[in-house]
Amino acid sequence: MEIWKEIQERLDLPILIAGPCAVESEDQMRLIARILVKHGVPILRGGAFKPRTSPTSFQGLGVEGLKIIKQIGEEFGLMTISEIMDPRDFENTDWLPDIIQIGSRNMQNFALLKEAGRQNRPVLLKRGMAATVHEWLQAAAYIENEGNSKILLCERGIRTVTEVTRNTLDLGAVAYLRQLGTYPIIVDPSHAAGVRSLVVPLAKAGLAAGAQGLMVEIHPSPDQALSDGEQSLTFVEFEELIQSIRF
Amino acid sequence: MEIWKEIQERLDLPILIAGPCAVESEDQMRLIARILVKHGVPILRGGAFKPRTSPTSFQGLGVEGLKIIKQIGEEFGLMTISEIMDPRDFENTDWLPDIIQIGSRNMQNFALLKEAGRQNRPVLLKRGMAATVHEWLQAAAYIENEGNSKILLCERGIRTVTEVTRNTLDLGAVAYLRQLGTYPIIVDPSHAAGVRSLVVPLAKAGLAAGAQGLMVEIHPSPDQALSDGEQSLTFVEFEELIQSIRF
Amino acid sequence: MEIWKEIQERLDLPILIAGPCAVESEDQMRLIARILVKHGVPILRGGAFKPRTSPTSFQGLGVEGLKIIKQIGEEFGLMTISEIMDPRDFENTDWLPDIIQIGSRNMQNFALLKEAGRQNRPVLLKRGMAATVHEWLQAAAYIENEGNSKILLCERGIRTVTEVTRNTLDLGAVAYLRQLGTYPIIVDPSHAAGVRSLVVPLAKAGLAAGAQGLMVEIHPSPDQALSDGEQSLTFVEFEELIQSIRF
Amino acid sequence: MEIWKEIQERLDLPILIAGPCAVESEDQMRLIARILVKHGVPILRGGAFKPRTSPTSFQGLGVEGLKIIKQIGEEFGLMTISEIMDPRDFENTDWLPDIIQIGSRNMQNFALLKEAGRQNRPVLLKRGMAATVHEWLQAAAYIENEGNSKILLCERGIRTVTEVTRNTLDLGAVAYLRQLGTYPIIVDPSHAAGVRSLVVPLAKAGLAAGAQGLMVEIHPSPDQALSDGEQSLTFVEFEELIQSIRF
Repeated sequence: MEIWKEIQERLDLPILIAGPCAVESEDQMRLIARILVKHGVPILRGGAFKPRTSPTSFQGLGVEGLKIIKQIGEEFGLMTISEIMDPRDFENTDWLPDIIQIGSRNMQNFALLKEAGRQNRPVLLKRGMAATVHEWLQAAAYIENEGNSKILLCERGIRTVTEVTRNTLDLGAVAYLRQLGTYPIIVDPSHAAGVRSLVVPLAKAGLAAGAQGLMVEIHPSPDQALSDGEQSLTFVEFEELIQSIRF
Repeated sequence: MEIWKEIQERLDLPILIAGPCAVESEDQMRLIARILVKHGVPILRGGAFKPRTSPTSFQGLGVEGLKIIKQIGEEFGLMTISEIMDPRDFENTDWLPDIIQIGSRNMQNFALLKEAGRQNRPVLLKRGMAATVHEWLQAAAYIENEGNSKILLCERGIRTVTEVTRNTLDLGAVAYLRQLGTYPIIVDPSHAAGVRSLVVPLAKAGLAAGAQGLMVEIHPSPDQALSDGEQSLTFVEFEELIQSIRF
Repeated sequence: MEIWKEIQERLDLPILIAGPCAVESEDQMRLIARILVKHGVPILRGGAFKPRTSPTSFQGLGVEGLKIIKQIGEEFGLMTISEIMDPRDFENTDWLPDIIQIGSRNMQNFALLKEAGRQNRPVLLKRGMAATVHEWLQAAAYIENEGNSKILLCERGIRTVTEVTRNTLDLGAVAYLRQLGTYPIIVDPSHAAGVRSLVVPLAKAGLAAGAQGLMVEIHPSPDQALSDGEQSLTFVEFEELIQSIRF
Repeated sequence: MEIWKEIQERLDLPILIAGPCAVESEDQMRLIARILVKHGVPILRGGAFKPRTSPTSFQGLGVEGLKIIKQIGEEFGLMTISEIMDPRDFENTDWLPDIIQIGSRNMQNFALLKEAGRQNRPVLLKRGMAATVHEWLQAAAYIENEGNSKILLCERGIRTVTEVTRNTLDLGAVAYLRQLGTYPIIVDPSHAAGVRSLVVPLAKAGLAAGAQGLMVEIHPSPDQALSDGEQSLTFVEFEELIQSIRF
């Protein structure tokens, strides 16, 4: 089925996206894909290009990572999503994921937004860490203005005074955007929480506020993850999350 | 039954607090109290002293308001809660509400916290608009340090960049405090939302995140409320909220 | 000379306020007072009641501290300023300082503001850590509304994302308030900086932006200060500051 | 003289950058260049690619704008600076300005930072609107990591609660970075202020805090500017600024 149609049909379920922060290896991705298939989760995430604060932190596997997630997606019949950070990476479409992710730091990278707007693929647009809702919608308008209206918004937490989570998941904005109805809205509780123990309550709260989907980080061995291990769910925790939101 | 025990026993239901922003008249409070009784809501709120940004805005009915809420509470068998803003108001306990509310602007009013700590009544401590979770817990410690450990925390939203709500309800902090378990934690979706249409989704999200209760503003005619009318639920909306959280 | 007149006449110099975070002893205050006299600094500060985040931190000497600062002020012919946190502390005026300080945490403690508005003494009103300029001006209006228009505003930094200072000194607000001209505006670079090495550049920047005065923390032995030692200037640093702003 | 050397030699004066928000025409740029020459201001700014929140706002003249500023710079013997937003714009170096500006919204656009790091031109890196100082320094490290250490930092205000300015100029960060000494630090009072009347006091405060330069928006007829007119200085105001900082 056409991908955007499939996404739209699953928004009421809600739609689930899961996978590691970063693609690390074929083996890692295969283990994770199996869990997704087992639970009927349709979209596999995995970062190939990682936007890290420091230039000396692990930057992802790059194109090699895109190839791995694409191959595993086809092998398991899963849709794939991965972040694109450079407008030049749209030139060769061979390895592009099914869904283009635009990250928080690039929410107002207008060159990138315009290029994403020229693709025939859905775009998931994360909110900037200090962006207003108006700015976020205007960033989406940059994509749509180029002809692509297959846009999913993803709330992933904003910067606030709070110190017990990495960011503050803004569920008032989620409720507002759900009522507005311009674009589907999902939440990423993993980046908002920053710690594993708060991911499940925030995921449930996000759905209760009106989110139409979740994007969650999972890892077979979070303690050995190359990035964001402390906020990745184990497979057992992920199964508990799945149970708790489907009744 | 002793009030603190009653509160604790209802935390799993969850516990519900409802009423107008400000006590305006006996008639208004009686209308509202009837709705609470009808739906089994045990605690009636209503501000007598209103902390308004401007000295020329409506400041509440003062002691007269305390007398009205106390009388209506007794008439209908409801527990009452109202904000106290001045340590001298604890001197005459005749009109004190069953539960003392400390408002956001006074979260670090240490003279007031200490006096609340010397009362034999539960205290609901709202989080300051830009307070960290640590500062909030330390403010509660000021109350407990004086001998009163009957403390409820109430998350009511913090100041952020978001413009579609008045404040941002911090449900990561709520999930954290629920897991910490030091004090019961409830949420006030009305002040966080600032607009009626977002109160119910935020209320549901708050409970999903782990909140053990809700404090909600309701008014028989929100358009004629003397303060905060735009965020007060009508009785019909309140009934819908009650339905949606009890199953 | 009448105190408010004296303050007003010195605003163009600019006016300087200096002293320790907390009054610790007569000896400490006498050492500091001597430095003020030496440099023509007219106002001695010193906290008697300290608003500390934790109830177990040093809370100041209380009334004893007020007595010490008053006595030293008279001994050296200095005006005095100290924070009042409880409206009941205005009942006995014997030990009140010449200028009443309302701290950041109490900027919207309306019971306290009203009581300060009934005193015949100048009030220095610090900005709340997350208060808008409008809210700050409205807080001043609470004081003026009771009949006291001898009000000094003090910008001391607001909460932001910045991590290299304790707070961010908002000099745009200072420039705005200077142009507005409703109340004199001074800055407290010590609390904004949070570290000694940044106090002098922020003090100079404050004056360049239009501030009519400075309030600075100094201590004979900052390393042994009972509170805020890391941001207190030594006497030598204070002399350098004085030199650098008087030409 | 080599550009980076010239910049470094002028840091103590301080170094001044001035020009319009957006390059609008040759005539406009020529009028402005004349004022710069008259006052010995060495660097002409002017946006060719404008990062606007909305895709339907004026986006700048693009490459045509780059050509105009380059031509006017050569005609008047001025160094030029303009923002580059797309890594592909580095491919043709014919029209690149002498100094590459990376804007606030792109502070963590790592593809762009890396490409700027491969140029043999100085880079002015503006701070993101909600970036910590550490994140800003790490963004500079992305540029330096590719071999380009000719980096100027530019503080332009961060998002805070304050409503009387567009952003809050963080002069504590400026003082810190000046003392740190890793990169020269300048301030942009125009974007911080957002209104003309506050630009001069913030400019003076910036220098007092330790900034080694200023970037200021000026326009021959601010009321007719295609963008940011309300914060652009007139020529008369600009002359007053020049007078007030040179003594």
